[in-house]
Amino acid sequence: MNYHKVVFQPGDVLVEVVEGNTIKEAMNDAGLEFDFLCGGRGTCGKCRVRISEGLGAPVTREQELIQAKELDEGIRLACMTIVRNDLTVELPNQKKLQHHILIESVEGALEIEPQLNKVFVEVEKPSRETQSSDWRRLKESLVKQGYEDSKLESSVSILRQMPDAIRGANNHITAVMYNSRVVGIELEDTTKTMLGMAFDIGTTTIVGYLLDLYSGKELSVVSTLNPQTAFGADVISRLTFASHEENGLIKLQSTVIEAINKLIVEAVQKASVFRNQIYGVSIAANTCMHHIFLGINPQSIAVAPYVPALSEPLVLDASELKISINQAGKVFMLPNIAGFVGADTVAVLLATELDQSEDIKLVIDIGTNGEIALGSREKMVACSAAAGPAFEGAQISSGMRGAVGAIDHVYYRDKLDYSVIGGGKPLGICGSALLDTVAGLVELGIVNKRGKFLAYEQLTNPVARRFKENLIQHEGQGAFLIAEASITGHGRPIMITQSDIRELQMAKGAMAAGVRVLIETYGIQVQDIKEVLLAGAFGNYLNPHSACVIGLIPLELEGKIKMIGNAAGTGAKLALLSSSKFRRSKDIAEHVKFVELGSYPRFNSIFGECTYFNIQ
Amino acid sequence: MNYHKVVFQPGDVLVEVVEGNTIKEAMNDAGLEFDFLCGGRGTCGKCRVRISEGLGAPVTREQELIQAKELDEGIRLACMTIVRNDLTVELPNQKKLQHHILIESVEGALEIEPQLNKVFVEVEKPSRETQSSDWRRLKESLVKQGYEDSKLESSVSILRQMPDAIRGANNHITAVMYNSRVVGIELEDTTKTMLGMAFDIGTTTIVGYLLDLYSGKELSVVSTLNPQTAFGADVISRLTFASHEENGLIKLQSTVIEAINKLIVEAVQKASVFRNQIYGVSIAANTCMHHIFLGINPQSIAVAPYVPALSEPLVLDASELKISINQAGKVFMLPNIAGFVGADTVAVLLATELDQSEDIKLVIDIGTNGEIALGSREKMVACSAAAGPAFEGAQISSGMRGAVGAIDHVYYRDKLDYSVIGGGKPLGICGSALLDTVAGLVELGIVNKRGKFLAYEQLTNPVARRFKENLIQHEGQGAFLIAEASITGHGRPIMITQSDIRELQMAKGAMAAGVRVLIETYGIQVQDIKEVLLAGAFGNYLNPHSACVIGLIPLELEGKIKMIGNAAGTGAKLALLSSSKFRRSKDIAEHVKFVELGSYPRFNSIFGECTYFNIQ
Repeated sequence: MNYHKVVFQPGDVLVEVVEGNTIKEAMNDAGLEFDFLCGGRGTCGKCRVRISEGLGAPVTREQELIQAKELDEGIRLACMTIVRNDLTVELPNQKKLQHHILIESVEGALEIEPQLNKVFVEVEKPSRETQSSDWRRLKESLVKQGYEDSKLESSVSILRQMPDAIRGANNHITAVMYNSRVVGIELEDTTKTMLGMAFDIGTTTIVGYLLDLYSGKELSVVSTLNPQTAFGADVISRLTFASHEENGLIKLQSTVIEAINKLIVEAVQKASVFRNQIYGVSIAANTCMHHIFLGINPQSIAVAPYVPALSEPLVLDASELKISINQAGKVFMLPNIAGFVGADTVAVLLATELDQSEDIKLVIDIGTNGEIALGSREKMVACSAAAGPAFEGAQISSGMRGAVGAIDHVYYRDKLDYSVIGGGKPLGICGSALLDTVAGLVELGIVNKRGKFLAYEQLTNPVARRFKENLIQHEGQGAFLIAEASITGHGRPIMITQSDIRELQMAKGAMAAGVRVLIETYGIQVQDIKEVLLAGAFGNYLNPHSACVIGLIPLELEGKIKMIGNAAGTGAKLALLSSSKFRRSKDIAEHVKFVELGSYPRFNSIFGECTYFNIQ
Repeated sequence: MNYHKVVFQPGDVLVEVVEGNTIKEAMNDAGLEFDFLCGGRGTCGKCRVRISEGLGAPVTREQELIQAKELDEGIRLACMTIVRNDLTVELPNQKKLQHHILIESVEGALEIEPQLNKVFVEVEKPSRETQSSDWRRLKESLVKQGYEDSKLESSVSILRQMPDAIRGANNHITAVMYNSRVVGIELEDTTKTMLGMAFDIGTTTIVGYLLDLYSGKELSVVSTLNPQTAFGADVISRLTFASHEENGLIKLQSTVIEAINKLIVEAVQKASVFRNQIYGVSIAANTCMHHIFLGINPQSIAVAPYVPALSEPLVLDASELKISINQAGKVFMLPNIAGFVGADTVAVLLATELDQSEDIKLVIDIGTNGEIALGSREKMVACSAAAGPAFEGAQISSGMRGAVGAIDHVYYRDKLDYSVIGGGKPLGICGSALLDTVAGLVELGIVNKRGKFLAYEQLTNPVARRFKENLIQHEGQGAFLIAEASITGHGRPIMITQSDIRELQMAKGAMAAGVRVLIETYGIQVQDIKEVLLAGAFGNYLNPHSACVIGLIPLELEGKIKMIGNAAGTGAKLALLSSSKFRRSKDIAEHVKFVELGSYPRFNSIFGECTYFNIQ
């Protein structure tokens, strides 16, 4: 293997990189923090760096996303640029950038009021006459800072540290407070730093954000595949594993706790801080992941009436859950709404501030299950739609996750065109390309509103006839060829079959029916909705027009769609940075009216209608 | 070895006993609970049983303590009766007896209002529409029982048990409550039993009382030597060990926790109940034992200004301290007053209700350290006097603990007479006999008020001349022979030497000076004291007259002395049986004014005067 030297600026960080790796991978090797919004797929165009030495030609994707003038100045995408020689790479000012992202995502300035607080105090010297105990004197010094004597409390582990801390620091200590509870004692004045980590535990992915709780700054972002996938890819198989395998629940729980602890280590290493400085962790997760994280049997979610064991927010000792932060640290669990509308949805609502919106908004978080909420500060309704994994590329003949080699967007130009994540030969299509392809087929009249491929002879749109060669037969039914076997990475053709379209109809039908039922329940018309907020990774990559053409989102709302990124992660951050936001999460969870689609009158006919495609 | 059969009634409990053992030991072997108030020394006369078959002649001690008529009916002392043949022994109704003792010790009826409570509820079935979680529905059922919704809380371990418990018991469960916190969940209705254990952790002895928290009944009593004695006999040596030995504190702590856990096992076995049914443990201990129990470094108590690290009452999770009761159980720590006036004193004051007394009372708890409190509901003062171990027989030439073979009382009759614990040949004298002997020497003018032996020629009291043969010389100084070498168990004489008297003068001088300083501080005269309450084991055995003659207690108070037994243990029980009593312990600890003898003006001269004996 050939190695090349890559120097990152500012900071003169040198790393040796295997030829063929991307700059993104080099940054990983160097332990540099960087936020790859699209996960390094080359779709968001946000991971811009400047190559000041060793610049090569841009790849297609870079030409599309970066202006010619900037390309000349050496601007490239870190995820797309392959290391072929020694390089010097200039990074943007990280922290400033990330802080901006965070503030931006909450649509306005956040008043930081962290769940935990640090107070520097001088404890009075002990006296022979009063015999005032160490704890008594510490309390008196906290009362001087505005705390109420009768409310102050502590734990035995803190009381154990206290005598030596007070004497070791010559009576000058910093008390770490959670409300009126002393949860930590540090020597001297350490009020400058106070760290926390927010986690979004998804069924598939876990993302963690290391935060400075005073400035709100994001110090590093880490993510990993949820290792529970080894025990089942989706919520239902995890529920089954937890309930029916011996020690299934304990296995699932310890797996996720271990993953969280690894991410914590990774995050503090990236940010050059210490794990012990982290006093708070917040968790947003769907109800099943939430219960498993706590070691609570999620069995009740699996069987009718599908209620959770626990919906309230919780504040727990990190040590009780074996989360490896400061031994006195706290874990803040966002509340759930229902068995299939969990704390992740609450986090999304917290981030979007739906509960304070004057306008009625529709919030959609698409994953294996889609959660949909509709409302304003007047009232909110929410439901869960079992979309199935089609949007994630599963159960689609040529489907794959949005990883390197996946076709992520399809364009009907003179001939069929597409983009591939990573830029190489295609290996399959991911959800967003599935939407693009089918939307095009619908718009061109190649597929009718019932989802059926028409014969070439039946096509009336002249543009459709351009794609005659793409119209093939597969297993006796119509299909649409995207890439011939000769040009794919594995030598097999990539196509959309009739049954792929059926899968998509089921998936989008479930989502669309959910939206329709919420609108009905709310008692409004589609046009009363002022904004559609698309949360989650998939929501960020899909083409809004395609989503509307296939009827995933009502066509009338096409101009009102806004992508909001990982809003669940943002909500988790907010819950940690602001105790009033955390309190608000309880109100949100209580006030959102859950709509159970399965028992909604006429649901089956609504769902049936929603499997159709919109034809204008 | 010869074995005999002993059958206990009621219950037909049969046990085989080695010849020569006492009935007390047989009861131990049989696992029968019984309260030996004097520890089995044959002094209290309370362990009466009736021998219905196999009756033998009574021993001297039984003849003294039991009326002739009762002796004829077969009444004997369990601790004094040696098994020499097969026996049938009738026991009094235990529980009734013990309940009576408990109530008696608090001087009136106790309103039982246990720290923990059980509530039987029917949880509503879950519903598809409301999606009300298990915890939500459990809370609603508790609200119906009068709990306030917003205050209800729980722990993750309870939430883990909840789903299976609710479904396993068809929605009928018992919630174990600590205030508004659910600390336990049991299937079906278990509100009948709720157990707790109160502990008095002394420097030398640990006593545990297993209680039914609803009836207040004592189900069993257990005790053990504090195994920490292996690391030092007194508080100061333990403090040194904790601070200077590697892992000293951890060793001491784990030793006492282990001892407590063993006592718990012993107590539940005796009472035929389960450890898991115990939800609460209360702890009364001196400040050093208190800190060590919690794993808090007691170093600050050892050096000026001798303040404790912690004085407030605490409620902790038993699991955090590794106390093996129900995993959700609580530990209630009584508060401390000062470094050398600890939670044991607070427990004594709780039991004696000094804080509610209209009359001014003097409360004395004599151990290695003596704690003295004086006051009424108006105000209270307290101090600690470093009495030294003379009262426990240590540092006395012929001294020993109050165990079998110890002379416990001495009588100046025609000739010197004495009683021996266990009735055999004497091996030494214990504290109470030391008091009796010296008191007699003082009253007879054999020892002057400065504590000096007079020569036989100097004696003016004709009665004193009766004891001419007891007046001997030892190492060139006067001494008083109690038992000749020929009649002792070890073949050495038992005597009181001049330096023994000096030891006693120091010990009683410290206590008396403490009493004097408290009276001065309070601003009253000795005669204003309406009652003297003697707590603790030693206080129960001493002869009040002897105590007054030597000046341990002011002579004027002789008629006002009352023995109150293990009041610290009683206080610990009260703290567990009544949450208002536990709250009151905080007030007591805060309101008692601590008087530091070492810094009291003229203390040295007061102490000097107090080493003198009172001569009428």
